[in-house]
Amino acid sequence: MPIYQNEANMRVFSLNSNSSIVNEIVKELGIEKGRSTITRFSDGEIQVNIEESIRGCDVYLVQSTAQPGNEYLMELLIMIDAMKRASAQTINCVIPYFGYSRQDRKARSREPITAKLIANLLEKAGADRVITVDLHAPQVQGFFNIPVDQLLAFPILSKYFLEKNLTNTVVVAPENGGVIRARQLGDALDSPIALIDRNRSLSGGGKMDIMGEVEGKTAIIIDDMIDTARTVTAASRELLDRGANEVYACCTHPVLSEPAVDRILESDIVEVVTTDSIYLPEERRSYRIKVLSLAPMLAEAILKVQNNESVSTLFE
Amino acid sequence: MPIYQNEANMRVFSLNSNSSIVNEIVKELGIEKGRSTITRFSDGEIQVNIEESIRGCDVYLVQSTAQPGNEYLMELLIMIDAMKRASAQTINCVIPYFGYSRQDRKARSREPITAKLIANLLEKAGADRVITVDLHAPQVQGFFNIPVDQLLAFPILSKYFLEKNLTNTVVVAPENGGVIRARQLGDALDSPIALIDRNRSLSGGGKMDIMGEVEGKTAIIIDDMIDTARTVTAASRELLDRGANEVYACCTHPVLSEPAVDRILESDIVEVVTTDSIYLPEERRSYRIKVLSLAPMLAEAILKVQNNESVSTLFE
Amino acid sequence: MPIYQNEANMRVFSLNSNSSIVNEIVKELGIEKGRSTITRFSDGEIQVNIEESIRGCDVYLVQSTAQPGNEYLMELLIMIDAMKRASAQTINCVIPYFGYSRQDRKARSREPITAKLIANLLEKAGADRVITVDLHAPQVQGFFNIPVDQLLAFPILSKYFLEKNLTNTVVVAPENGGVIRARQLGDALDSPIALIDRNRSLSGGGKMDIMGEVEGKTAIIIDDMIDTARTVTAASRELLDRGANEVYACCTHPVLSEPAVDRILESDIVEVVTTDSIYLPEERRSYRIKVLSLAPMLAEAILKVQNNESVSTLFE
Amino acid sequence: MPIYQNEANMRVFSLNSNSSIVNEIVKELGIEKGRSTITRFSDGEIQVNIEESIRGCDVYLVQSTAQPGNEYLMELLIMIDAMKRASAQTINCVIPYFGYSRQDRKARSREPITAKLIANLLEKAGADRVITVDLHAPQVQGFFNIPVDQLLAFPILSKYFLEKNLTNTVVVAPENGGVIRARQLGDALDSPIALIDRNRSLSGGGKMDIMGEVEGKTAIIIDDMIDTARTVTAASRELLDRGANEVYACCTHPVLSEPAVDRILESDIVEVVTTDSIYLPEERRSYRIKVLSLAPMLAEAILKVQNNESVSTLFE
Amino acid sequence: MPIYQNEANMRVFSLNSNSSIVNEIVKELGIEKGRSTITRFSDGEIQVNIEESIRGCDVYLVQSTAQPGNEYLMELLIMIDAMKRASAQTINCVIPYFGYSRQDRKARSREPITAKLIANLLEKAGADRVITVDLHAPQVQGFFNIPVDQLLAFPILSKYFLEKNLTNTVVVAPENGGVIRARQLGDALDSPIALIDRNRSLSGGGKMDIMGEVEGKTAIIIDDMIDTARTVTAASRELLDRGANEVYACCTHPVLSEPAVDRILESDIVEVVTTDSIYLPEERRSYRIKVLSLAPMLAEAILKVQNNESVSTLFE
Amino acid sequence: MPIYQNEANMRVFSLNSNSSIVNEIVKELGIEKGRSTITRFSDGEIQVNIEESIRGCDVYLVQSTAQPGNEYLMELLIMIDAMKRASAQTINCVIPYFGYSRQDRKARSREPITAKLIANLLEKAGADRVITVDLHAPQVQGFFNIPVDQLLAFPILSKYFLEKNLTNTVVVAPENGGVIRARQLGDALDSPIALIDRNRSLSGGGKMDIMGEVEGKTAIIIDDMIDTARTVTAASRELLDRGANEVYACCTHPVLSEPAVDRILESDIVEVVTTDSIYLPEERRSYRIKVLSLAPMLAEAILKVQNNESVSTLFE
Repeated sequence: MPIYQNEANMRVFSLNSNSSIVNEIVKELGIEKGRSTITRFSDGEIQVNIEESIRGCDVYLVQSTAQPGNEYLMELLIMIDAMKRASAQTINCVIPYFGYSRQDRKARSREPITAKLIANLLEKAGADRVITVDLHAPQVQGFFNIPVDQLLAFPILSKYFLEKNLTNTVVVAPENGGVIRARQLGDALDSPIALIDRNRSLSGGGKMDIMGEVEGKTAIIIDDMIDTARTVTAASRELLDRGANEVYACCTHPVLSEPAVDRILESDIVEVVTTDSIYLPEERRSYRIKVLSLAPMLAEAILKVQNNESVSTLFE
Repeated sequence: MPIYQNEANMRVFSLNSNSSIVNEIVKELGIEKGRSTITRFSDGEIQVNIEESIRGCDVYLVQSTAQPGNEYLMELLIMIDAMKRASAQTINCVIPYFGYSRQDRKARSREPITAKLIANLLEKAGADRVITVDLHAPQVQGFFNIPVDQLLAFPILSKYFLEKNLTNTVVVAPENGGVIRARQLGDALDSPIALIDRNRSLSGGGKMDIMGEVEGKTAIIIDDMIDTARTVTAASRELLDRGANEVYACCTHPVLSEPAVDRILESDIVEVVTTDSIYLPEERRSYRIKVLSLAPMLAEAILKVQNNESVSTLFE
Repeated sequence: MPIYQNEANMRVFSLNSNSSIVNEIVKELGIEKGRSTITRFSDGEIQVNIEESIRGCDVYLVQSTAQPGNEYLMELLIMIDAMKRASAQTINCVIPYFGYSRQDRKARSREPITAKLIANLLEKAGADRVITVDLHAPQVQGFFNIPVDQLLAFPILSKYFLEKNLTNTVVVAPENGGVIRARQLGDALDSPIALIDRNRSLSGGGKMDIMGEVEGKTAIIIDDMIDTARTVTAASRELLDRGANEVYACCTHPVLSEPAVDRILESDIVEVVTTDSIYLPEERRSYRIKVLSLAPMLAEAILKVQNNESVSTLFE
Repeated sequence: MPIYQNEANMRVFSLNSNSSIVNEIVKELGIEKGRSTITRFSDGEIQVNIEESIRGCDVYLVQSTAQPGNEYLMELLIMIDAMKRASAQTINCVIPYFGYSRQDRKARSREPITAKLIANLLEKAGADRVITVDLHAPQVQGFFNIPVDQLLAFPILSKYFLEKNLTNTVVVAPENGGVIRARQLGDALDSPIALIDRNRSLSGGGKMDIMGEVEGKTAIIIDDMIDTARTVTAASRELLDRGANEVYACCTHPVLSEPAVDRILESDIVEVVTTDSIYLPEERRSYRIKVLSLAPMLAEAILKVQNNESVSTLFE
Repeated sequence: MPIYQNEANMRVFSLNSNSSIVNEIVKELGIEKGRSTITRFSDGEIQVNIEESIRGCDVYLVQSTAQPGNEYLMELLIMIDAMKRASAQTINCVIPYFGYSRQDRKARSREPITAKLIANLLEKAGADRVITVDLHAPQVQGFFNIPVDQLLAFPILSKYFLEKNLTNTVVVAPENGGVIRARQLGDALDSPIALIDRNRSLSGGGKMDIMGEVEGKTAIIIDDMIDTARTVTAASRELLDRGANEVYACCTHPVLSEPAVDRILESDIVEVVTTDSIYLPEERRSYRIKVLSLAPMLAEAILKVQNNESVSTLFE
Repeated sequence: MPIYQNEANMRVFSLNSNSSIVNEIVKELGIEKGRSTITRFSDGEIQVNIEESIRGCDVYLVQSTAQPGNEYLMELLIMIDAMKRASAQTINCVIPYFGYSRQDRKARSREPITAKLIANLLEKAGADRVITVDLHAPQVQGFFNIPVDQLLAFPILSKYFLEKNLTNTVVVAPENGGVIRARQLGDALDSPIALIDRNRSLSGGGKMDIMGEVEGKTAIIIDDMIDTARTVTAASRELLDRGANEVYACCTHPVLSEPAVDRILESDIVEVVTTDSIYLPEERRSYRIKVLSLAPMLAEAILKVQNNESVSTLFE
């Protein structure tokens, strides 16, 4: 039997960002969650306690580096260090939402490329592999020298919309950069696409323009994440102004910074469909926000990695 | 005087891919080209000869890793090794066209990320800095841990079109992923944009669709590179079918693999505007292909780097 | 003139932890503070703006990784990345208070060595040198492969007490591990020392014992940092119980986590003498806390480093 | 079965520093010692011969870097290189006495941190793990990026003294830095502690002072190592002068450089209790020196590592 | 059972340089060749397709970096990257002919050491081990930090000549540097040796001289590779001029650059004996060139590596 | 003025192996020797004292790793660490004799490649450059990733023999591997060469054979080093037996292990000519051993490196 096929060797640990998804993952896997706690010392420094031996184990550390992202990232780095020094066999980071992934290039002079920095920090700390979902740009995989398995939430979202049996739909990219994502959902829903184009030329003055037909249609805006919800709610208004019948929105990562939830509630968007890549605390939930779970997919990916099976069925 | 300001310390070397641009660069800089040759042994192995001492110098190696890309890349890596062992102070790679930059992510299972591999190889060989033009995706900057200065050819292209005084233009992205680039040129030319959308849904069957108005307009297709010219010539046909008056095309990198030149000649594209980031041998030139020179911009970038001045004016 | 002696090449930047000490440092140096800001995006991610070219410069980034330590550490790492990619000549981290330095060994199974992790992260990000003050253990210098200049606050503290002309003093180590530090101050003040010994044997039961004479004396408790103030206030009570006349306390790093300030105010400690290695916000200040400035010493260290002069006068 | 649990895969090799402890270890483990020799060429260069295949094995190299430390360290480094090139699965260094561990910080300007250098050299050569006993400072663990298991000799020493049934004992730290170690043994023996304080202030003039009660007691001096025995014999004299009944001494590492053995013999110390972390050649033995064996503990640690069991029972 | 002994975990992949030897190797091993293709994009960039999951497998990539060496090297590097990102357990490079191995030192100023560069590139890409045959200089093993198994073709060559039952032989080194190789074959054939000495002194003028007896003998010239065949055919002429009866030649690596084959055909060499370390295309074959297969030896080496058995029987 | 040209920035330090050559080097350079001492603690551990600030300096550490090689190597590594932590600008190792250079390949199974290990250790410690003389194999240059300047003692030796006006000379390689070196000296002296061939075939039985004419000639044996002198004295006997008139010997590195000096004195070799790459203590000197100084050449090399001038005149 090759080394990794022994599932007895597998340990899944929750860090503080998203214990509810970890609970679901281990339930799917039929195992106990690894015993550990991460607390704070009186001065705010992170205290890690790993309460069982993990010598020679393949550990999976589940942490989304969502808000407060710096805290959660440091938790992850320190946990990796502790696992390495405690002689884990391999350290696999399951990062459903990879924070800072929008800082993936120098857009202006003297900018950091923080997503790359974080890739370096994870490797330096001792990570052996990353499993993540829908990076802001797929190129971020190449920031790592270790294997990265990027899963796609897109089939989960499209399945949800297909089950709704919406008719006469159009999938809308809310920004110039989102056409590929819109096309992908459009293909799955057998739907045309449209694009919100923001014209910044001298005479354009930043006004929004819609390319593609939306009149009389059910529009589904898609983005990889919704942060302040400014873009998506502005797009929604524009679509309704141009005659769309109703507007849905969807995204993989519900960042939902202030005042996103209020904006959504005040908007005419019928429903915002998203996932649990980021844990939504009570105050960021709403009847308008539908959360689909990534846990079954993540559990399957962990199991396939542990058993050395191909995960390509999960992202192709 | 800070260390780098001594221009006497600067040496610019040509490798084999594009000696004509290097000749222009050194002319702009008012210096002699570094004395070196790169030849082949009888079995095809690369032989590097550096014919002057470069101890303590800041060397700039100019090489586009265009076709034959593997040969030119190996030339560059071996030259870096020779420069490092010959005690260069810093080794700066000026790579007007960064080959393999389309292999920047795992699109399917078990794919390499060759652009990242090449970044690693350059750093391992001993490169201290990269100066390049229009990466396929800006995230490739983040594949490096060393500073990367990405220059943009876009102002050179837009200046050329502005001087043409075309009227009633529309800038066209020939593929779903090209809208941002089209918008950028559109803003500069104060022009609307359009998009060729390829619908691959069940009922779409791969047919092309045009989003945005093109009828009666002068269309300017923009892409970062033109390789086989299949995309650009198909887009041109579609635009003319939809009533465009005439079609121009432009790109930064004239890869022009077989049978690109024939396709362009057989097409109705008025002119393909490009740069000398890749040297065009006689057989790949044509009256329909207009080549603008990057040499003044590259010379200015080299000088600013050498004098520790900000290069941001060149890419913001 | 050797390379580094050009002070024109020196830039001192403040990050968010302690801008008041940086203001003093640049005043001492007679230069302008580097222009930069560090803010937060709506989702809490750090946004760095460096507002002047630093190509070829020797930059000094001043940041104490005090509470909120994870935030300040991430600021520092991201700033280093930005500086590296903006082509700084050298990146020098001035870290008056090096957080996490108490996590410097595996005291129990499966603990991280977070101080080492942070050393690795700083080096990986691109730091070339660290200047710091009074590490919790001097061995932390050895966690780095880059040069570390550890300055000592001890002469500043002893000078202050000498000027007070206290008589009949005894310097007290509040814990078993603090005797060396007490001896050092004792030698400077020409004073005997005492030690609070906590006996954890079966019959000892954790009771505190004082070794050395304290009756009728003015006791000066010394520690490297005061965190919750539990140790120092308990020591003070014990000293007064055993007949000490009055009790002072001093430390280099005023961590002062909740409820340290209240404990100090409720205690009988005459005065807690400390430094500005950590910025004390209004709510953590009190008439009982005397803050001495490290800025002149840090400014001198920066200048000596920049001019390649020995800094040993500052720590021997 | 996870990878490491196969004890058949385990090989324990002796280098030249301490073959007697290795003989005991392999006897405890019930295995043969790995077949190898380390000799010298005519010019003193080290010649390593590994006389059995170790492909895919987990090898344990046992070597104390005691006098001649440079020779023994080089033997270890060269052996690691040979093992790595011979395709060992993992290379585990068992270093009962880690030499140079006192050079663990820059105490004065321009000092090396040799303990850190050696950690780097071991990792660079190819070591995967270190098992050691009682580092001079526990922070030295953090000099490594690989897992370090630090075992403690202290329970072996305290067990020996408990079996002696000494009464009215006091545990003595012979120097200001040794109080924590004394407190630890004091707790185990249910004994008070005392401290030899050396006052170097202007008026102190370097004289020794004893803090804590020693009169009429049986004093047990504890240190991590005894090198020249100057400190321990001076402490003994002082204790007897102050009325101690009798004096024992103990340490983990019997460095015993010239003229330590003579000093011990000439002193009034009843017995010096130590371990076999360093091999004592005939000329450094004496009836006054009692050597306790670490071999059972090291054998247990090796077995637990090989079987991926927690070693924490050995150091907590 | 230790980890690697499971042969089910082993995968052997062919790259483009020498698929015929790989076919023989997998036949010897009784396994299927790994499913993959390496093609070229229209612009000549390499496209790798791995058509089966290799997660957790020990992969063996067989590639000689013979002409076109830069292409084949890049194929190998990109394949390693793909295998690493696809989560191979170990990546073993089987390189029967290691190109660029003659560039193994700085013979003149400012030369690269390309063989070392390539070792670095292979390691950086992710290679875990190299299996190769007859390096130009054995020191090239030391360019790697990973294990290198260098096999020797020499027993295959000597066995062939022994079976020929030649009498009165002399083994000839065709250059000053080849005496050790000639002596080795001479010992195996129980034959004296001779040396072609090229005198470049002032009066020598580059003329060739033969040291050792050749008159009336059957000469066997040996070299590690035959490139242009200039040296070996000149040596043959000289030997016949000095009275040798007939001349054979042998080498491990048939580089055979233009016009080697013609030179051999035009020469009086009876037979050139070589191996299939480099694939000989039809146009480089001739009745005068006898190719012995390395496949059985390579297959045995792969199997021994996979089963953690000593390969020393293959090179001692 | 470029950065390195300031000779004021240059510091040359002697370690313990060869202070006499350093005295000559600094005299040639007209500078003071750097102030430092390297002593031993009581237990034999190395104590380094650097007695002047070297911040920002280019330091040259002169050390031959000759007998006791492990001690001298550790001195060098520790000194590099101290220099790095004391903020040297560059650390240049001048190693006239590079010990362990004969262990440069795996000649048998499970051998280390110690020369490569040492290259790695030097780089890891912090060396920026190596200047050395006559490596055992030139490929050892490629063990380093930093620049290596290998100087050649051969012109110094040939000049000495030319001044002797010997007639009818033959240069002799004492072993099969030494022909290239003999040819090189032969070319310089306009002399034929001869070779001592040791036949180890079944019938050869290890007997020595001479190839080339020696009768009536003055033979000059050349080797890179003379260790036990067994080879050179046996060669001398054989040459005289075959009718040579008289025998000289020369080498770059006088290792001269026991009983080399006695063997030389008892032999018929007229003179052994060597250099001061290794310091010869009184007991290893003799009237038969002529020592030529490398100091002028090394001083020139240091100066050229410091001034960024080509050193190729010193080795081509």
